[in-house]
Amino acid sequence: MYKKMNSINDLHALAQLTNGFRKSNKTIGLVPTMGALHEGHLSLVDQALQETDETIVTIFVNPSQFAAGEDLDQYPRTLEADLEKLAEVGAQHVFVPTADLVYPPGFSTSITPPQVAARLEGEFRPTHFSGVATVVLKLFNMTRADVAFFGQKDYQQVCVLRAMTADLNVNVQMRVCPIVREADGLALSSRNRYLDADQRKTALVLYQTLQHTRDLITGGLNDGFEIVTEMRQMLIDGGVDNIDYAVVANPQTLETADFIDGPVVALVAAHVGKTRLIDNLMIQ
Amino acid sequence: MYKKMNSINDLHALAQLTNGFRKSNKTIGLVPTMGALHEGHLSLVDQALQETDETIVTIFVNPSQFAAGEDLDQYPRTLEADLEKLAEVGAQHVFVPTADLVYPPGFSTSITPPQVAARLEGEFRPTHFSGVATVVLKLFNMTRADVAFFGQKDYQQVCVLRAMTADLNVNVQMRVCPIVREADGLALSSRNRYLDADQRKTALVLYQTLQHTRDLITGGLNDGFEIVTEMRQMLIDGGVDNIDYAVVANPQTLETADFIDGPVVALVAAHVGKTRLIDNLMIQ
Repeated sequence: MYKKMNSINDLHALAQLTNGFRKSNKTIGLVPTMGALHEGHLSLVDQALQETDETIVTIFVNPSQFAAGEDLDQYPRTLEADLEKLAEVGAQHVFVPTADLVYPPGFSTSITPPQVAARLEGEFRPTHFSGVATVVLKLFNMTRADVAFFGQKDYQQVCVLRAMTADLNVNVQMRVCPIVREADGLALSSRNRYLDADQRKTALVLYQTLQHTRDLITGGLNDGFEIVTEMRQMLIDGGVDNIDYAVVANPQTLETADFIDGPVVALVAAHVGKTRLIDNLMIQ
Repeated sequence: MYKKMNSINDLHALAQLTNGFRKSNKTIGLVPTMGALHEGHLSLVDQALQETDETIVTIFVNPSQFAAGEDLDQYPRTLEADLEKLAEVGAQHVFVPTADLVYPPGFSTSITPPQVAARLEGEFRPTHFSGVATVVLKLFNMTRADVAFFGQKDYQQVCVLRAMTADLNVNVQMRVCPIVREADGLALSSRNRYLDADQRKTALVLYQTLQHTRDLITGGLNDGFEIVTEMRQMLIDGGVDNIDYAVVANPQTLETADFIDGPVVALVAAHVGKTRLIDNLMIQ
């Protein structure tokens, strides 16, 4: 039997709940998701349950972070299964707003995201991080979160949100949890379910490329251009259909590294069939 | 003898103070100012002291809401006199940050303000409200304000901030306090001190025009074009050097009214010499 989970659909009920937490000095943990939950999301919920008094999971497929032609309509919506999984891990509160609740008629304010949003994903999805930053700030405020939990899988998203919260003096602590992978190394993603069996095998080359990149760098290779050339070749040989980017970069600014003399993060974004996959690896 | 006032200059001290208030469930009132305080500002402080447990006044001349060629450098800075006035009215806490504290190196996030920012002031000062919205959101977060107090003098600013807080689900209640005027009707403004004796007399025509506009409308005139034509003529006859706008508008959206059949707000912005003055009047 699952513990009883509190499901909230309107802002008034959410405000009443969180005002109560505030008055009794309980800390509020937020796990913002777009649903289609997998073990990666659940690891964030686990962490929130450990670190905070009250954990609020939000499920909202945010239209404003998808551009025209992206997979907003196809994005998997599995609410019943999501709620079951959340109850199973002991999530206390789940907030599932409609788009009208988040963006009522007349809504017209947005966040112009910090500089780090312009690179990588920003080049291929120029409006994406404005949508992410705006909805995350709204969710922070709606839930009155003290601590918010994000996956390292969306590495640049974490950089953008860290800079946004610092720049706007937002009173929310950010926690970043490790990427959860399948046994064969594929990073968990709600989009993995788009892959057929062959594509699923091809998709492994993203993480293999990141591991190879780490081995090259820890083995002493420090020429950024040489490393990136090898990354791209490995992705192409592995059968990806298109590479958006494959880079080694400064872990804070995401500026690409010409010469590697400190910690870097390797990041890849590539298409397998019609599915766009991303992955990354910190290299000390 | 004045009550002891707590003067704060760094974010860490401010956070400690406001965290303490939060823990003891005290409400925090914010009065954000650019200094050069007059009775209008002090009426906001009075209101905050009445409505909230702890009143924080901020003094910060925000560079990002001034455009090149505006009066940032000339803007009056009268910190000693400001602190004296605040102590006199019993303000509990005053926060006076430096520009580096508000905008540290690397700062690069901003608010794209809501639609209502595009009209009137937005046409003449296109970057102004982005600067205002960004700094006010930062001050809300820095001070953990529950209630914030603004003057109706900056009518459009209030509309912008109301829409911004609603759009971003900001947990701050906005209070708007009436315009404070000199005995002869001139709205108090830190910029009035730019006026010489003759200009000071000329400046009276702004409020006289608003009063005349009210009399026209309450007398039955409902043709927006006719009213605005008369407003402009009166300002010109009164000797202003340039009119930025003179309108009657919807009090929420600030859309100009062609035909008046409900409450409106009359707003004027005009230059007297080099000094740009604004004023407004609600007409039921």
